[in-house]
Amino acid sequence: MLKTGLLGAGRIGHVHANAISAHPGSTLVAVSDVVTANAEKLAAAYGAETRTSEAILQDPEIDAVLIATSTDTHSDLIEAATAAGKAVLCEKPVDLSLGRARACLARAEATGQPVMVGFNRRFDPGFAALKTACDAGEIGKAELLSITSFDPAPPPLAYVKVSGGLFRDMMIHDFDMAQWMMGGLPDSVSAVGTSVVDPAIGAEGDVDTAVATLRYADGRLAVIKNSRRAVYGYDQRLELLGSEGLLQAQNMLESNVVKSNAQGVTGAKPTYFFLERYMPAYRAEWAAFVDAVQSGGAMPVTLAEGVAALALAEAATLSSREGRPVAMRDILN
Amino acid sequence: MLKTGLLGAGRIGHVHANAISAHPGSTLVAVSDVVTANAEKLAAAYGAETRTSEAILQDPEIDAVLIATSTDTHSDLIEAATAAGKAVLCEKPVDLSLGRARACLARAEATGQPVMVGFNRRFDPGFAALKTACDAGEIGKAELLSITSFDPAPPPLAYVKVSGGLFRDMMIHDFDMAQWMMGGLPDSVSAVGTSVVDPAIGAEGDVDTAVATLRYADGRLAVIKNSRRAVYGYDQRLELLGSEGLLQAQNMLESNVVKSNAQGVTGAKPTYFFLERYMPAYRAEWAAFVDAVQSGGAMPVTLAEGVAALALAEAATLSSREGRPVAMRDILN
Amino acid sequence: MLKTGLLGAGRIGHVHANAISAHPGSTLVAVSDVVTANAEKLAAAYGAETRTSEAILQDPEIDAVLIATSTDTHSDLIEAATAAGKAVLCEKPVDLSLGRARACLARAEATGQPVMVGFNRRFDPGFAALKTACDAGEIGKAELLSITSFDPAPPPLAYVKVSGGLFRDMMIHDFDMAQWMMGGLPDSVSAVGTSVVDPAIGAEGDVDTAVATLRYADGRLAVIKNSRRAVYGYDQRLELLGSEGLLQAQNMLESNVVKSNAQGVTGAKPTYFFLERYMPAYRAEWAAFVDAVQSGGAMPVTLAEGVAALALAEAATLSSREGRPVAMRDILN
Amino acid sequence: MLKTGLLGAGRIGHVHANAISAHPGSTLVAVSDVVTANAEKLAAAYGAETRTSEAILQDPEIDAVLIATSTDTHSDLIEAATAAGKAVLCEKPVDLSLGRARACLARAEATGQPVMVGFNRRFDPGFAALKTACDAGEIGKAELLSITSFDPAPPPLAYVKVSGGLFRDMMIHDFDMAQWMMGGLPDSVSAVGTSVVDPAIGAEGDVDTAVATLRYADGRLAVIKNSRRAVYGYDQRLELLGSEGLLQAQNMLESNVVKSNAQGVTGAKPTYFFLERYMPAYRAEWAAFVDAVQSGGAMPVTLAEGVAALALAEAATLSSREGRPVAMRDILN
Repeated sequence: MLKTGLLGAGRIGHVHANAISAHPGSTLVAVSDVVTANAEKLAAAYGAETRTSEAILQDPEIDAVLIATSTDTHSDLIEAATAAGKAVLCEKPVDLSLGRARACLARAEATGQPVMVGFNRRFDPGFAALKTACDAGEIGKAELLSITSFDPAPPPLAYVKVSGGLFRDMMIHDFDMAQWMMGGLPDSVSAVGTSVVDPAIGAEGDVDTAVATLRYADGRLAVIKNSRRAVYGYDQRLELLGSEGLLQAQNMLESNVVKSNAQGVTGAKPTYFFLERYMPAYRAEWAAFVDAVQSGGAMPVTLAEGVAALALAEAATLSSREGRPVAMRDILN
Repeated sequence: MLKTGLLGAGRIGHVHANAISAHPGSTLVAVSDVVTANAEKLAAAYGAETRTSEAILQDPEIDAVLIATSTDTHSDLIEAATAAGKAVLCEKPVDLSLGRARACLARAEATGQPVMVGFNRRFDPGFAALKTACDAGEIGKAELLSITSFDPAPPPLAYVKVSGGLFRDMMIHDFDMAQWMMGGLPDSVSAVGTSVVDPAIGAEGDVDTAVATLRYADGRLAVIKNSRRAVYGYDQRLELLGSEGLLQAQNMLESNVVKSNAQGVTGAKPTYFFLERYMPAYRAEWAAFVDAVQSGGAMPVTLAEGVAALALAEAATLSSREGRPVAMRDILN
Repeated sequence: MLKTGLLGAGRIGHVHANAISAHPGSTLVAVSDVVTANAEKLAAAYGAETRTSEAILQDPEIDAVLIATSTDTHSDLIEAATAAGKAVLCEKPVDLSLGRARACLARAEATGQPVMVGFNRRFDPGFAALKTACDAGEIGKAELLSITSFDPAPPPLAYVKVSGGLFRDMMIHDFDMAQWMMGGLPDSVSAVGTSVVDPAIGAEGDVDTAVATLRYADGRLAVIKNSRRAVYGYDQRLELLGSEGLLQAQNMLESNVVKSNAQGVTGAKPTYFFLERYMPAYRAEWAAFVDAVQSGGAMPVTLAEGVAALALAEAATLSSREGRPVAMRDILN
Repeated sequence: MLKTGLLGAGRIGHVHANAISAHPGSTLVAVSDVVTANAEKLAAAYGAETRTSEAILQDPEIDAVLIATSTDTHSDLIEAATAAGKAVLCEKPVDLSLGRARACLARAEATGQPVMVGFNRRFDPGFAALKTACDAGEIGKAELLSITSFDPAPPPLAYVKVSGGLFRDMMIHDFDMAQWMMGGLPDSVSAVGTSVVDPAIGAEGDVDTAVATLRYADGRLAVIKNSRRAVYGYDQRLELLGSEGLLQAQNMLESNVVKSNAQGVTGAKPTYFFLERYMPAYRAEWAAFVDAVQSGGAMPVTLAEGVAALALAEAATLSSREGRPVAMRDILN
């Protein structure tokens, strides 16, 4: 039984608390939050205690912590938790600063503690099935990856201000999918970002619509499209062209009912947002973490991969800002 | 908290134990089974006690029982449980004998206890969404209902022998869907059943492929198709033609991945069988039962409806055997 | 070059004139119609002459006639044309009277002239591809055929009065599809017809919604659903369950554009009616006729098959009227 | 009746000859080809004469010419034909040299003769329906256009050598779609091209896989993906995200038959290549040209648009080669 402490009792904290409680091999012992009332509410719902983060990290009875706090605390908490001998599952992104994230990686690795980064989409049944088919050679050699990733509606401006920008906050998920599907980092990133959804986002210096093209050393390409607004729901599709075929992971729909009338043939919209679409993925993510911790096996998503995804976001941010392709070696050296 | 006893620890008993345990408003107290080892195994998995059925029914602490035993015990257990003051959720069919089922209905009703029959498909998200759309008038007046319901593979012959035949065992689900969608019973039933899947089924006097047509007093029609074998999975579709359009509930698929290659464009198969397809429905069914019991509201599927579905199965069995339409009034009088 | 005379210059006559003219191996020489102005208009459009039917049949230069006149003239014209040594393609149905059609068949066969009946759906690319796949054994042994065939809107009452009823006028197409797919006639037909679309149709003694179930000697089944009204267009689908899989021919759509918005994901409707849906089929039908005439090969749809389809319609009409299954041997003897 | 001369009797010349002959308002008078046997064969098939290009251009009876010769002759023939007072429909691209194309545009415009460029995809029913829906405001303001355009198999190397490269030969179609959908030219083009399909293509200095991103002055984006190989057929899809929804034009399939078996649910592949997919488009293109010439209306695709598409191809070629975004003003000035 993996005794788990949860740091952060916000919306995503609740998702994780649910997964921790539902898993037969883990139990939620304690929860902390900077807003004590939030922690208390979550603790009550799941039969856990409310503590400070420090108290959780110092409790020798606790085996693992799940970090679901605000991004600016991730690196510090990963370092503190690994230093305290905990296994760690940390929400993405590792940090908004690539330098800070790399320092965190070095310190965490020095402790030898297992750290996993919460790229939940790897555990989505559709994306996972596509990866399995690709790895099994079903489409021969992969050549061109395309990711469509649109949010249903832009976040509040207050969130935009602290998010680190679309590439670090939103496209970072797609950068991770790309490194997972294509196996490693590209040579260069070309990104174009604009603000056509909401001028207020542009006024904050951020973008709301973007395309990034990744070029790999062996000539393979990946292209990622992001928009902060798709009024029909959460549009999450991926397709991979290979030498022997095409694999596509389509959207999950709210229902399998279709209506035909004089206006056309209408099916359901995609599931609305990440909570609906990725709930099974969050559960599978937690299960994979528990399995890896208990078996001593490799982390399904390593901290190094979390840092690499951030490096891609850094490169895309720079590319979009300066209007030029950015070589990954210039980011990583 | 609805304290629940589970009678029957077979495959479907496990499904229900899972739903009872997962529901925040109910708890699984005790389980019984004619094979004690089965009861013990299930009880251990869910932290319940093992008892006899009689002990469960006599325990004043137990509020409700879920009957998941073999069909030939359903009527007796419904009568005993209602007499003991329990709320009851009983698996389909109520009985293989319509006369026995009607007697059971009379006795159960006399106790005033709530009894629900486990027609899980009413709680399938797709079918429920279709019903909601129909009730909202989205296709005008319903005129022609079509149900496709194919099992992936025939059951063992030993099961066929005691099943009561395809119409009472398998099509009874579709008869319930028809009465639910169309609102009540038809005037007459015409059924044609044959054995083309497995001659051994025919040799038992049963059929493995069948079509039933229901004619309602107002001229509406319903047609149900059953086959014991669809090698591609569990094919569960429903469509309803109305004066202003068509509603279709399509299959749920194993995955949303599509592969295109030189052989074609291939998507996933339907989910394999009822456990995969209807797991959400079993949970929703239990939740609806708990809600109704706790609120004192009407049962979502009444025992009378369970008996009516059996009457349709009786009519279809007779129609198929004698090669003639059967009037429902001749069955019910 | 097959010199062709066209008898009948109505809507379907224009369809055939187009096919005859477009085919490189045939030419439209002359056209007749009881309304001379209709014949003249069609003749002008296709560079043909206007003549009487008699003149066309007596012209030794004319190799073939296409009969697209009103149904009550079909038998007489088939007899006259074959007696005159013409190859004949006649629109469905052969006749409204089964006795008359059988007499016509005997007389036409006596002449040795080739006669084909215009069951255009056999030449629809989708249905033909499905038949090819079935014949190639792709789904093993066929067991259960389902045909959905809905018109977009009921015909005028004046047409209903002379149509011979839904089974002879509309479902006859589906009876032909059934005999083509299943290879021959069933043992018995059970049909249920009602009038729920338009009471005026019922008042004429006809039905507007119907289901027919065909039972074959070897236990295979076919079920046909008809409705005179599907407000979303011409719904023409067929599916065939076999021992190793399912084949489905889906609707053809007006466009391949899909729109996703806050209301759902909406694709195009089925093509509106038979002219839109089956235009390629009419061309392929004519090409198959020309090929068979010129090669001396077997007619792709024989007159005997046209009569057999009518026998099925006769049986279904009787079954629906009398509320009992009808044995085909009672119809054919 | 538009008397038409056809210059070029290759594969695409046959496509156009078919469209010219089938159109009720045009007739194919004469055809030329550098290989006389090719011209003779086509002329015989369509009942036309064989002449030299010069003779066709000098014939005062000929109203229009369709230029379907090799690309290196397009500019000269456009100039000669317009100077000779002909209406012109010229295959894409106008030229491989942007400078030469711009000179041709100036000279052709000076004659006042109507010139249309054969961007057939604008006349594809699906793309045209999508454009109509977009122009009608069905998805609000367009923001992000995505074009997927994959050939089934790479062309022969001999063709690659003279093609002008993927951007001028293949992606030029997509550049035209982009200017048509988005209304004009972008500010800048970023393209990444690689050779992963066939190293021999890379050895010729060309690419076989490419992604181009177009950035418009108002912030809108378009992304185009090309591959020379999609083993499942000709993959031609387009989607447009707007402020109020998404429009998608999906592939046309070889058939509407779907097979479900133990391996999955398999539908038909996309139609194989441009002849199959775009035959209706070629006919509609010719009809639009005839209409515009006869009515004196605006050309549906102007020569200036043909030159603009070439400018985009030029920019993309440069961008891919130099690894930097290219401003369109640097190309056009």
